[in-house]
Amino acid sequence: MSLSETKEFDLITLGETMWRLSPPGHFRLETAHQLDVQVAGTESNVAVALSRLGKRVAWWSRLPDNAPGHHVANTLQTYGVDVSGVCWGGSRLGTYYIEFGSSPRPSQVIYDRAGSSASEMRPDDFDWSLLRHTRWLHLTGITPALSPSCLETMRRAIAEARTAGINISFDLNYRGKLWTTVQAQPIMDELAAGCHLVITAERDAKAIFGTSDLPELSQRWNGATVVLTRSAAGATAYDGGTTYDAAAFDVQMVDRLGAGDAFDAGMLSALMDGKPLDEALRYGCAVAALKLTIPGDMALVSRAEVEHLLTSGASTIQR
Amino acid sequence: MSLSETKEFDLITLGETMWRLSPPGHFRLETAHQLDVQVAGTESNVAVALSRLGKRVAWWSRLPDNAPGHHVANTLQTYGVDVSGVCWGGSRLGTYYIEFGSSPRPSQVIYDRAGSSASEMRPDDFDWSLLRHTRWLHLTGITPALSPSCLETMRRAIAEARTAGINISFDLNYRGKLWTTVQAQPIMDELAAGCHLVITAERDAKAIFGTSDLPELSQRWNGATVVLTRSAAGATAYDGGTTYDAAAFDVQMVDRLGAGDAFDAGMLSALMDGKPLDEALRYGCAVAALKLTIPGDMALVSRAEVEHLLTSGASTIQR
Amino acid sequence: MSLSETKEFDLITLGETMWRLSPPGHFRLETAHQLDVQVAGTESNVAVALSRLGKRVAWWSRLPDNAPGHHVANTLQTYGVDVSGVCWGGSRLGTYYIEFGSSPRPSQVIYDRAGSSASEMRPDDFDWSLLRHTRWLHLTGITPALSPSCLETMRRAIAEARTAGINISFDLNYRGKLWTTVQAQPIMDELAAGCHLVITAERDAKAIFGTSDLPELSQRWNGATVVLTRSAAGATAYDGGTTYDAAAFDVQMVDRLGAGDAFDAGMLSALMDGKPLDEALRYGCAVAALKLTIPGDMALVSRAEVEHLLTSGASTIQR
Amino acid sequence: MSLSETKEFDLITLGETMWRLSPPGHFRLETAHQLDVQVAGTESNVAVALSRLGKRVAWWSRLPDNAPGHHVANTLQTYGVDVSGVCWGGSRLGTYYIEFGSSPRPSQVIYDRAGSSASEMRPDDFDWSLLRHTRWLHLTGITPALSPSCLETMRRAIAEARTAGINISFDLNYRGKLWTTVQAQPIMDELAAGCHLVITAERDAKAIFGTSDLPELSQRWNGATVVLTRSAAGATAYDGGTTYDAAAFDVQMVDRLGAGDAFDAGMLSALMDGKPLDEALRYGCAVAALKLTIPGDMALVSRAEVEHLLTSGASTIQR
Amino acid sequence: MSLSETKEFDLITLGETMWRLSPPGHFRLETAHQLDVQVAGTESNVAVALSRLGKRVAWWSRLPDNAPGHHVANTLQTYGVDVSGVCWGGSRLGTYYIEFGSSPRPSQVIYDRAGSSASEMRPDDFDWSLLRHTRWLHLTGITPALSPSCLETMRRAIAEARTAGINISFDLNYRGKLWTTVQAQPIMDELAAGCHLVITAERDAKAIFGTSDLPELSQRWNGATVVLTRSAAGATAYDGGTTYDAAAFDVQMVDRLGAGDAFDAGMLSALMDGKPLDEALRYGCAVAALKLTIPGDMALVSRAEVEHLLTSGASTIQR
Amino acid sequence: MSLSETKEFDLITLGETMWRLSPPGHFRLETAHQLDVQVAGTESNVAVALSRLGKRVAWWSRLPDNAPGHHVANTLQTYGVDVSGVCWGGSRLGTYYIEFGSSPRPSQVIYDRAGSSASEMRPDDFDWSLLRHTRWLHLTGITPALSPSCLETMRRAIAEARTAGINISFDLNYRGKLWTTVQAQPIMDELAAGCHLVITAERDAKAIFGTSDLPELSQRWNGATVVLTRSAAGATAYDGGTTYDAAAFDVQMVDRLGAGDAFDAGMLSALMDGKPLDEALRYGCAVAALKLTIPGDMALVSRAEVEHLLTSGASTIQR
Repeated sequence: MSLSETKEFDLITLGETMWRLSPPGHFRLETAHQLDVQVAGTESNVAVALSRLGKRVAWWSRLPDNAPGHHVANTLQTYGVDVSGVCWGGSRLGTYYIEFGSSPRPSQVIYDRAGSSASEMRPDDFDWSLLRHTRWLHLTGITPALSPSCLETMRRAIAEARTAGINISFDLNYRGKLWTTVQAQPIMDELAAGCHLVITAERDAKAIFGTSDLPELSQRWNGATVVLTRSAAGATAYDGGTTYDAAAFDVQMVDRLGAGDAFDAGMLSALMDGKPLDEALRYGCAVAALKLTIPGDMALVSRAEVEHLLTSGASTIQR
Repeated sequence: MSLSETKEFDLITLGETMWRLSPPGHFRLETAHQLDVQVAGTESNVAVALSRLGKRVAWWSRLPDNAPGHHVANTLQTYGVDVSGVCWGGSRLGTYYIEFGSSPRPSQVIYDRAGSSASEMRPDDFDWSLLRHTRWLHLTGITPALSPSCLETMRRAIAEARTAGINISFDLNYRGKLWTTVQAQPIMDELAAGCHLVITAERDAKAIFGTSDLPELSQRWNGATVVLTRSAAGATAYDGGTTYDAAAFDVQMVDRLGAGDAFDAGMLSALMDGKPLDEALRYGCAVAALKLTIPGDMALVSRAEVEHLLTSGASTIQR
Repeated sequence: MSLSETKEFDLITLGETMWRLSPPGHFRLETAHQLDVQVAGTESNVAVALSRLGKRVAWWSRLPDNAPGHHVANTLQTYGVDVSGVCWGGSRLGTYYIEFGSSPRPSQVIYDRAGSSASEMRPDDFDWSLLRHTRWLHLTGITPALSPSCLETMRRAIAEARTAGINISFDLNYRGKLWTTVQAQPIMDELAAGCHLVITAERDAKAIFGTSDLPELSQRWNGATVVLTRSAAGATAYDGGTTYDAAAFDVQMVDRLGAGDAFDAGMLSALMDGKPLDEALRYGCAVAALKLTIPGDMALVSRAEVEHLLTSGASTIQR
Repeated sequence: MSLSETKEFDLITLGETMWRLSPPGHFRLETAHQLDVQVAGTESNVAVALSRLGKRVAWWSRLPDNAPGHHVANTLQTYGVDVSGVCWGGSRLGTYYIEFGSSPRPSQVIYDRAGSSASEMRPDDFDWSLLRHTRWLHLTGITPALSPSCLETMRRAIAEARTAGINISFDLNYRGKLWTTVQAQPIMDELAAGCHLVITAERDAKAIFGTSDLPELSQRWNGATVVLTRSAAGATAYDGGTTYDAAAFDVQMVDRLGAGDAFDAGMLSALMDGKPLDEALRYGCAVAALKLTIPGDMALVSRAEVEHLLTSGASTIQR
Repeated sequence: MSLSETKEFDLITLGETMWRLSPPGHFRLETAHQLDVQVAGTESNVAVALSRLGKRVAWWSRLPDNAPGHHVANTLQTYGVDVSGVCWGGSRLGTYYIEFGSSPRPSQVIYDRAGSSASEMRPDDFDWSLLRHTRWLHLTGITPALSPSCLETMRRAIAEARTAGINISFDLNYRGKLWTTVQAQPIMDELAAGCHLVITAERDAKAIFGTSDLPELSQRWNGATVVLTRSAAGATAYDGGTTYDAAAFDVQMVDRLGAGDAFDAGMLSALMDGKPLDEALRYGCAVAALKLTIPGDMALVSRAEVEHLLTSGASTIQR
Repeated sequence: MSLSETKEFDLITLGETMWRLSPPGHFRLETAHQLDVQVAGTESNVAVALSRLGKRVAWWSRLPDNAPGHHVANTLQTYGVDVSGVCWGGSRLGTYYIEFGSSPRPSQVIYDRAGSSASEMRPDDFDWSLLRHTRWLHLTGITPALSPSCLETMRRAIAEARTAGINISFDLNYRGKLWTTVQAQPIMDELAAGCHLVITAERDAKAIFGTSDLPELSQRWNGATVVLTRSAAGATAYDGGTTYDAAAFDVQMVDRLGAGDAFDAGMLSALMDGKPLDEALRYGCAVAALKLTIPGDMALVSRAEVEHLLTSGASTIQR
């Protein structure tokens, strides 16, 4: 994975980003008078976290040319993500509502993303030649579920990245509200087989492919490195030869969303820094733990904070 | 317009109601961190105001069977509107964003209503036999612009109301973001010709029909009573014989939206109470003036407040 | 308990409902700059929860004809409770302040309900003939403590319900700030003896009657079914023959108030649906558990949520 | 009016202070989710403004010994008012709701003060000997309307102040919701006749005494100095010989309440500083103008701000 | 002023940016419980507005490497301003408090900027070679008043820009709280004499130089183009030959701060677009007018909005 | 420790008090849009808690004569602390930012106190003769770290208190961001040796003096009573003869800051009431526990609440 320093971006990612609208505290959406606005998208979450960790990152998507669309682009720029590759057009920003539960009442997500600008993304919307000045492409399994043109864009992205000879990571991110496991399986297999690093929740691997056996999954996907995540139970990786484990950190949770994306960003950042896979797993777990303490989907952490946690563990106050 | 007291509802109205999402104060939508949630729809605005003025009112529509959908129905119930005729189904609640300007910066509306449950409304969604126990049907020119099935529902509504022999009022409510004046004209004409009372902004009448001449418009629509509104300049009505004028009240404006609906409700309430057309116009202007001082689209006034304004004029404090 | 479907209401309840005013978060009332407003009353809490579970419910009370009074009626209408039987009059809405503690600091309630409209309730304020079109009457032991005329209204309610031959449930809801156990005992006994289902906290039964022995209590009250609740330790019921137990659910608490009322509503709903007493207890525990996760006194749940909890247990997120 | 510098307080005042609860902005009370809490009482408003202008002031009243009662005392202490003479007891803090209107919708006040601790004030609650170490006593016409024991306390206050030989000012502050003009007239006359300075809105003087003729009123009240206020039209005073006028300042109003109390405080402060009556009127108008720009009932101004306004007029920004 | 399109930035500006902390609404700072946080600095305000109008802009300064410092850099990035030239170091972010008045109470600014990182700015903190790839340098008269090293940085900036042969604009922005007119005069003269475009409030020109005669000022500063601004009374410019006037727009003001910076940005943008000076003045007035309707110091407008105002005038709502 | 009742104050304390600015909830300071304002200073925290427990307390410091300075003085007056000894002057109020973490993310404090008015405190700023009418002087180890003149003020305070023959307590309160342990050690030793009661976190004793052995520390400081605190692990005291332990209470924490100050106040209050040292320790632990449940740095408790906790333990609700 050694890559020249002359690349323009460390990583490019593409996907849909939405407004996440939530009533404050534990109030029910059905009685909402106010909604908090956050920007959320699995790929842009990865992009923001990587940028905070010091990487040069670009995020590609389609956004409507109106206030909500610009709100999304502005927010990603806030954290240093390059949005100059965004294709402006289409009629609406996808949104989703989330109501935060408290055990035994589950948090509830209501997607309102049909017909979004992002779902109209097409392969020709982007300047693929930029991949030749980039070290890494990161994709997720949400995009192919959004529309046929999104699937075509994914296929094109993988083909172009392979031509450019750069690394490709793929987080399956299975969403049961977008498609069934039966629909997802052949597409996921096709796409994963073109990538070098495949990440998935263990539960989803079992549901879609009927197995969470790492060597079996690696073999299925042309020998890709495979990472299984298990929320509070940490992560396991297999690089075609060895299996590595990393434990999750104890967390007093503030906001559950985006932890998987934070994990991806931490792992990718460490890999780009030349760290071995086991350290990268642990780095990912640290970023995920910090994310869980921060409101919103984005891991608004600093590299120093991540490394302080990895070396010194948790502390209560710094003054 | 004398109607038996035995009718179950004083008025039924049907149309789309949305969530209105707005950043607080004069903040720009592009920088929003929080959005205020209001329930807004021209027909439900009329329904709520009429209910507050003492009328028994039902509102019919389609709503998604999720938290935003129930939020809308709950809110209308809060103010006594009957929602038992709502047809539950479809995938999303229409929403719109509004950013409040300040001169010379205009307030801006961004509709996000495509594919809403309401736009999938069909003639068979409703129990038309209820019109036989109702005094009045109120419709608007937004509904036919939403979808072909909405237009069909409008046609059916007018036909059923005519069969039932009840009053039909129609506020043209032209929306330039939904269709052009050229598209609107024949449909508006067709529908207005079936109604007894047609209300329109003077500006829209000119734009769509090329005239705001009251006798000409009345003749065009089978002799309907026609009311022209002119925002701060009041309203004029023509009942086929006489023209009546009413001046608008001086207002220190708090929220501009919904004033036209408040006017309709005030006028209809007065007509149902047997008041003559000129008094009804004035009653409408009073309800509209009070609405302009209340945040949100709905005229949350009481009959006593309206009548106090009509008889005593404005006052600064009651203690 | 089989009741004809032709009844107009499934249940009527009567009692006082107040504004509950609380500083946000854990702030002290003594330093409050803002107060959150909630509507709270043990009987209206039961009414709202039952309405959400699909029952037709009416709530009777006295309310002042001013903005706070209408706020209460509006709020109950929001959730489908019929308030047409409310008697409007009197000079003030009862209120109470609550400051939320955190262990070891207790939450503190300060009642400000003396002289409220509800405390002036009289037997002739209500149309008792409606009980003949109703399946169930629900009362609590707060009402008789408010005033002599409230006690008379309770006596009349029980007499009318017995004449109508409908079910009567009675939650003792002993409040030490309203009367002593010595004052309460004979009144509670007199009223309970006229009811079919008596619910009480085990602690209160011991304090007022010196026993929490179920058969003994049942016998004391003419063989009524008796239910004892024990907060986090669940509930026990005795139907004159058998004793049934139900465990409470594990809860990450958001708002402690109203859980007992939610329990009552869940149990009554299940009984009206023809479920046996042990299932009804469990249903009550589920509604109470969900209430504890929702800000405010009212159990703003859906039947589907309750049944999901009963069949699938707690889950963290649904997306 | 020359008074020794050795007095312990410059002024003592007594009366009822309440919580003022208001929905934010222009929202209606009937739809309130949150209420802003302010401390408001005509006499304590005067006390706070005088303290801010550099006077040593004590406020006497009865307050309940609970969180709302201590909130009131704390708040007055914040601004330097001595509350050590407060008599703690009784069951409730009087409150009032205010909903802010916007023309033509009036602001609305709903009092909820019956049975308050303050209304149970009795002559023996206070240590009258302190008046001998005080320069001035300030009273208002709200107190005698609250209860017979409040009236007795007023009578005692005037008698004690006369014995101590100190100045007594009396703002009639007629409140139509507490008593009729017919009830108020003899009491107002009796009390005013014992005071040296009587202040009243011109409108109230006409309503209660049938005249706003200054010499006539002065004569009626044993030759007291009489001040008539006319809101935006300024104030006029008569000292038994000469009539003085002061114009009100132009104000962009933020909160209408408490301006009269601010006027009183400004005028009294100037008189205590030895300024002539015409300057005192103008000083009062300046404090009132600044009060109108500040949320809440209290004139949270500084002496420097008042004097800057009097000497330099209005300015838009100081930086 | 024709400049090659190959320059990397359209404009570079340098100066201090602070946190602006203000109590909400019209509350007094002395009673604040919450403060709104805005990012404010005259040069960064210009940078943000220019970026929104489509220019590539860099902002240089010194910021502390802590959360407030990053907050400032992030916020400028949000709106597309390049902050890669920021020099990180020093111990604190300058802040200022602003309390919003209402006539006759003035708004009040309290600076807390002593010892800020920006005041420690030195000439060697920046890479001046970048000016050779830039079209324009913008400076203000606040910087030289902050510290001797800031003044040296200003001198260096002007020298480097002259060497690079690019345009230099200079807004005097006299701040009486930082230095006297006597102290400012020689420094202002020295710096202005090195610039091509000098902007100043007419009032400040009179106070510092004893004249607002345009030809005289232009001559004083080596024939620079001079622009005088007069708040609500518009602006006047003199290009060495002709005098041009532009009227201000009527505005319903929301936030007074930053309007002068918005004017500068509008004028500079138009000049860069090749528009003549009179059009540039008018463009500046339009951006300033829109700014006054937006909370915060920054002109968060779009080019389309500015041009709509210039061509169509004010409108109330767009829907 | 018996002291005459004729003393004017029970205790005087002096030190710096700041504005504590924090983003709401768990939001990051770097993304703050609003900051909550609290008043915080270790000595004024002690003063407020003692005042709430019934003691007459004065707080001395230097404050700027502007809105933030008066905000601090007002806030302490709110809770009955005498601020008449404050020396007004200097240019700024010290502030600090705190961002609340959640495990494993630490809370973070950023001080912005350099150049504050308080750091310019000098020995002659205060009227030391008042110590002769006071029972107790309380000091902390933050003051000597602020500036040389602050150290001199501390030395003078101890000398004057010794002359007056009153008790002196000293909480070391070591702050690593103000000085190193090597710098602190000789100063701490010098000052502690002049005091009767020295309180320190066990961790700090070890870091500064290399020991937490109580007899050794007591001997080092002329036989002073020494108290070691250990957060959740309680406190230990040594009075020159006996060692006493007190356990901390279990707490569901709301706000971690100020607990040590609350402990001091509780212990000092009990000692002033003549309670033995072991009871005083326990009293301190109770006040600290209640403080941890209250937002802000100040222990806004009542004596009754503390004593209820000591005698009855924790309870969940009082109604």
